[in-house]
Amino acid sequence: MKTDILTVADFLQYISSAVILCHRSPDGDTLGSAFALCFGLRQLGKKARVLCCDPIPQKYSYFTDLYCDEDFEEEVVIAVDVADTKLLGNLEQKYGDIIDLCIDHHPSNKDYATLTYLVDDAAATAQIIYRVLDVMGVEIDKNIANCIFTGLSTDTGCFRYPNTQPETHVVAAMMMEKGAEAGLINRLMFETKSRARLAVEREVFKNMQFFLDERCAVAFVTRDLLDKTGIADDELDGFAAMTRQIEGVSVGVFLKQVENGFKASVRTGDEVDASAVCKRFGGGGHVRAAGCTLELSLEDSIREIVRVISEYLK
Amino acid sequence: MKTDILTVADFLQYISSAVILCHRSPDGDTLGSAFALCFGLRQLGKKARVLCCDPIPQKYSYFTDLYCDEDFEEEVVIAVDVADTKLLGNLEQKYGDIIDLCIDHHPSNKDYATLTYLVDDAAATAQIIYRVLDVMGVEIDKNIANCIFTGLSTDTGCFRYPNTQPETHVVAAMMMEKGAEAGLINRLMFETKSRARLAVEREVFKNMQFFLDERCAVAFVTRDLLDKTGIADDELDGFAAMTRQIEGVSVGVFLKQVENGFKASVRTGDEVDASAVCKRFGGGGHVRAAGCTLELSLEDSIREIVRVISEYLK
Repeated sequence: MKTDILTVADFLQYISSAVILCHRSPDGDTLGSAFALCFGLRQLGKKARVLCCDPIPQKYSYFTDLYCDEDFEEEVVIAVDVADTKLLGNLEQKYGDIIDLCIDHHPSNKDYATLTYLVDDAAATAQIIYRVLDVMGVEIDKNIANCIFTGLSTDTGCFRYPNTQPETHVVAAMMMEKGAEAGLINRLMFETKSRARLAVEREVFKNMQFFLDERCAVAFVTRDLLDKTGIADDELDGFAAMTRQIEGVSVGVFLKQVENGFKASVRTGDEVDASAVCKRFGGGGHVRAAGCTLELSLEDSIREIVRVISEYLK
Repeated sequence: MKTDILTVADFLQYISSAVILCHRSPDGDTLGSAFALCFGLRQLGKKARVLCCDPIPQKYSYFTDLYCDEDFEEEVVIAVDVADTKLLGNLEQKYGDIIDLCIDHHPSNKDYATLTYLVDDAAATAQIIYRVLDVMGVEIDKNIANCIFTGLSTDTGCFRYPNTQPETHVVAAMMMEKGAEAGLINRLMFETKSRARLAVEREVFKNMQFFLDERCAVAFVTRDLLDKTGIADDELDGFAAMTRQIEGVSVGVFLKQVENGFKASVRTGDEVDASAVCKRFGGGGHVRAAGCTLELSLEDSIREIVRVISEYLK
């Protein structure tokens, strides 16, 4: 059931303990949101812990290192930045049906929780979490500021994507005033390119293909290349966006080989709804950025997704 | 002579006409600052025009198209974002010695004007221009907001570089509220990669060299590659930053072949002062980003700049 910020703040005020769930393949927004909320609840004397089905990438250690896990019987279950319970991975079985509160910004949110606080035009879930903590009277310390800033910065491509709002900049400024290490965070998130990434980039650019009057660009990485370079999964961020950024390209697709085929990340300009394209293959996401899995060979994956895109790209 | 914002605002309040000078190879900050000031002065009933020794890149047309040149005998000469009169190119001879006011943020500013308003920790000159316009009572319209936002965004790598201040985010938010087309501007400035740029990137990454225990990366483009791809000069932005972003690299150098040798752009992390390195070759700039010209062959340019960097990179 959809709810508002005052109800959320009131609900959280009276709980004694919570487990906070992130989505699988955790990014800066789900992690920043979860840890900010966890630290905030602890500041108010409550027990709180963060759970994710996948390992947390090392690059977030500037805030995850300050977290000590606590073991307790949780009173409530909260999901942050999780649009669908299937994104909980192997935590879905235990928690999928008993989520009391979901705080999210994905328009595709499935409203699976008892209470859902959805702000679907917020640039990041972390931006919503900041408002919730503010209403609850949590003092934003340096650590919470780092978490919130990370969510804002990662979900907006460092304030570059068109989802960035004036409020995003205002909250970013406040987090910097509260001690967020913006320079460090942006360097870690956006400015560090591993030698493995460099090697993968070379191949990706070399093999990129163009379709539909060069308005659709498709890039891919095979398991073989990933293994050979030893690139970490979270270092593959940004390839999808890069394809779309090429002159004249309206739809960019990045295919990553997985066990049962290829995982597609689709990025679009104004003309095509990326989530509509991905829905056709059982996926989903935002209007400009969405994903799906194609249980096909590389050649067939490319052919099928380009065929569907051609229907939308008039 | 160094001065303060109230003196600047007072000075501008009483002039009747001004010519506003940009630096050569104009970027978003010198242009955004100059046009914002020009539009602001015109709003207050003064005559104003913008001059630059080099052509203005097409990508800034969303604000330059709204400018109509006016011909008049100027009462005062203003330079914005110009650290040194030699950066005026062929306008130096006429104006170099008669600049009444300089508004700038470069620590290396030569204090060549009668009045210099220097805020050397400001992320962009546009951030200072906004404050000046605000003190003067100029109403920030959509057009001025676009100019200011462009300066902020381009000089901070879209709010990514460590020069970004809380104030930068606050002014960005205000400009968006005043109508700045942040999404459009960021797409034009940062998200459009021409096919020529794609071709140059492939070569640059292929030919990149590493020195000093891989802590120094050097990339280069030859005249031949530039001619073959037909890449525009302003599309070469960002290569210098890209070299520095590679894992383990403290100093990144990007060399571009020019008539008399190679123009070097140097980007550094915390360890090395880029402006100190470039000063050794008669150049200058900021602590983390500076430039110089090496009148040498490619091989000698690489050897010489790496030799100087090795002195600073302990």
